[in-house]
Amino acid sequence: MSKASQEGLTAKKAENFDEWYTQVILKSEIADYSPVSGCMVFRPSGYAIWENIQKSTDVEFKRVGITNTYFPIFIPERLLKKEAAHVEGFAPEVAWVTQAGSSPLEERLAIRPTSETLMYEVVSRWIRSWRDLPMRLNQWNSVVRWEFRHPTPFLRSREFLWNEGHTVFATKEEADAERDVILGIYRHVTEDLLALPGYLGQKSKSETFAGAQATYSIEHLLPDGKAIQGPDWHSDGQNFSKAFDIAFIDKDGNRQYAWQNTWAITTREIGVMLAVHSDDKGAVVPPQLSAVQVVLVPIVNDESKEAILAEAKKLMAKLERRFRARLDDRDHLTPGRKFNEWELKGVPLRVEFGPRDMKGGQAVLVRRDTGTKRTVKASALADEVEAELAAIQASLLARASETLAENTHEASTLAELKKILKEKGGIVRVHWCGKGECEEKMKAETGGKILNVPLDQKAAAGKCAICGESKARIANFGRSY
Amino acid sequence: MSKASQEGLTAKKAENFDEWYTQVILKSEIADYSPVSGCMVFRPSGYAIWENIQKSTDVEFKRVGITNTYFPIFIPERLLKKEAAHVEGFAPEVAWVTQAGSSPLEERLAIRPTSETLMYEVVSRWIRSWRDLPMRLNQWNSVVRWEFRHPTPFLRSREFLWNEGHTVFATKEEADAERDVILGIYRHVTEDLLALPGYLGQKSKSETFAGAQATYSIEHLLPDGKAIQGPDWHSDGQNFSKAFDIAFIDKDGNRQYAWQNTWAITTREIGVMLAVHSDDKGAVVPPQLSAVQVVLVPIVNDESKEAILAEAKKLMAKLERRFRARLDDRDHLTPGRKFNEWELKGVPLRVEFGPRDMKGGQAVLVRRDTGTKRTVKASALADEVEAELAAIQASLLARASETLAENTHEASTLAELKKILKEKGGIVRVHWCGKGECEEKMKAETGGKILNVPLDQKAAAGKCAICGESKARIANFGRSY
Repeated sequence: MSKASQEGLTAKKAENFDEWYTQVILKSEIADYSPVSGCMVFRPSGYAIWENIQKSTDVEFKRVGITNTYFPIFIPERLLKKEAAHVEGFAPEVAWVTQAGSSPLEERLAIRPTSETLMYEVVSRWIRSWRDLPMRLNQWNSVVRWEFRHPTPFLRSREFLWNEGHTVFATKEEADAERDVILGIYRHVTEDLLALPGYLGQKSKSETFAGAQATYSIEHLLPDGKAIQGPDWHSDGQNFSKAFDIAFIDKDGNRQYAWQNTWAITTREIGVMLAVHSDDKGAVVPPQLSAVQVVLVPIVNDESKEAILAEAKKLMAKLERRFRARLDDRDHLTPGRKFNEWELKGVPLRVEFGPRDMKGGQAVLVRRDTGTKRTVKASALADEVEAELAAIQASLLARASETLAENTHEASTLAELKKILKEKGGIVRVHWCGKGECEEKMKAETGGKILNVPLDQKAAAGKCAICGESKARIANFGRSY
Repeated sequence: MSKASQEGLTAKKAENFDEWYTQVILKSEIADYSPVSGCMVFRPSGYAIWENIQKSTDVEFKRVGITNTYFPIFIPERLLKKEAAHVEGFAPEVAWVTQAGSSPLEERLAIRPTSETLMYEVVSRWIRSWRDLPMRLNQWNSVVRWEFRHPTPFLRSREFLWNEGHTVFATKEEADAERDVILGIYRHVTEDLLALPGYLGQKSKSETFAGAQATYSIEHLLPDGKAIQGPDWHSDGQNFSKAFDIAFIDKDGNRQYAWQNTWAITTREIGVMLAVHSDDKGAVVPPQLSAVQVVLVPIVNDESKEAILAEAKKLMAKLERRFRARLDDRDHLTPGRKFNEWELKGVPLRVEFGPRDMKGGQAVLVRRDTGTKRTVKASALADEVEAELAAIQASLLARASETLAENTHEASTLAELKKILKEKGGIVRVHWCGKGECEEKMKAETGGKILNVPLDQKAAAGKCAICGESKARIANFGRSY
């Protein structure tokens, strides 16, 4: 452990969120800056979080019949331009390769900002008949979007890691039916792994993915009162299949264009997760995702040292079989220093084991999220750890859900909307008729935007907060990252 | 399945290796060309092979204490230039990003051809004391080397996937001790998963990795008589630690430069594997790595159809629990067409199940590698499949090892070396004194090169085939990909 990492946070979450967030991710040794402006480094405990997300998500993808592929990182400029709305959306942020060795390239190559155009050019060769469909492909890779806004590790990074799912169907009905399957997987991953609640809904036309016909998203809330978009799913209709000639002969012998979807979850989620759960002592990482789930810290004095370490190793052997567990038997640090360090790093559960514990056949569990201590029988340690980790995982989601509910407001007029956003922030449920001009007015007047329109409209239709049109639907509105 | 994929190979392995290889990887639907010159597409069954390699290798890495990270894809030009030999080796093949959106970049960014320079700039900040060491990091990512020679999917691709291990130690002894651990893992992966034998040894100085002090490799042999380099491990000494100031305070309070190693296995191995095992019927993929390990093809007539399919599904349910298994119950293809297709794709084992089998409580196993048929009890099908898959895996390695031994020759003079390489190809064991001028002469006269010098010199020292110096060691020599 380097000296720097031993220092605790100096910024407070409630006082200076931006500085606090930066300290959390750097001092926890989860991530670091890189010499490339706007690009970050995933340190081992940060990359382990992504590996755990990826593994669990990939199992779900495979379970529903999706297979993984790998397509090149480069997209020739002429391909990127094939779908007009798509290139318009991405061109301003494309990193261009123009030279190889000392030779200029004949055609510029984009580093993929997303792979639709490259993949679909190739996939069009693979599809001839209705028997070739559905074709459900996915890639786990990195993409580059050269944002010119202030980059923040995980939350807005010029290179980020993600999955990009690309699926092709014979009919609109089959394509549409995939929506709830994929969003169901993302809902499971965000809630059950990241312990992050969110609002599911459809994006407005102006916020729809470049080239898609409809975009659905899960929207999270950050502790500074701003919303941030999580995983999404796009219905592309036949936009790309027409541009890239992805067609098939149907059962009746007719040639038809295919229907396509795309969907993604990114490493941004790790930033949201850390921002939501962490506190002024450092990172808080949910047990499902943490590189180390439980750390055992023996507390020794000169006379007890040998016996305690021997017993601690026996306990560790049992824990290691069931958890990502670590024994911290470093000699040169006091237990207090170790406690601080593991709290800074966000390990969900600490086991303390000292002379009195050994004598009493017990151990002390200390939760990272609440600081609660509990003495348990040493003989039942692994079962107690399992129960405690499950409790932490559930509690993180429950607390984040409460916070989200507390910071979700209702407004029925523009004036109310403005007032809430100014005074409280958070997410505001407001009736919106669906028209672009009303959306624009809300944005211009408040500095916020329509995050999405919930699929499940529990509330009755009402009057649009701008134009007063009746039968307007509820939209989630907020300032957004 | 598209029409094109149903066609068998037209080229013969023994007659036109290059054309045969291309047909194997394309028609098996393992890989495809991309619209980017020299870059390939990993189709689902090809990417599954890499996923299986990666998973097994990663488990071994983690077992010995290596952790994964992710560093950015870009390397600023000034960093790439920090170690002189390194930049000299890589600069001619670097893809350069010079523009973002419509803005020219102030400094060119290399797409990583390998990550030493970027990683070490960052890692130098993480290391302060001997307590921070060893630091053993790995990345699974893609790299770009813009080769101007003829690209071949898997074997020589401008973008390829790999692991890059980067480890930092306090002492030369600890750094050197890592060699056999990592090469042991690579040996396990190549032999036990890819079923590929190879010769382990140290590269000559002229073939050592740019910036390293010593390179060790596993060298494989392709069916066309050319050698090809497999995974490697490099001892960097203190070259990079001095260039990037990776230093630590030792136990005595003195500042010292660290010792470093790097090591890699790449997707090239998949190409070698396919080239070595496949035949004129199509791909042959070892059971450990194949996307589908066993395919069950029911053989039905109109009256038996329903009963056979019902029974086949029961058998499949048992197989699926233990293997990557597929039931091919497609209606529109004859069993013969299905056999051809799965043979083309390289599925290791086929189970045939028809009316006579159902009546007799049996099933027929057909091995992809040998074509051997064996009738087994249906009640013991899963156990029989397991035994057969293990036999196939072992047999592929045994046959490849025999082929390698048959194509390994000995030469004691330059004339013999030339004659063998011209008439037979393969790998030639020849005494070499270790001097660069003798190596150059061998290369110039034969068109081959020194592949590596085996660590385990079983044969007695002899006279250098060029200069006649005694105490020369055996080197593996051959024409190389």
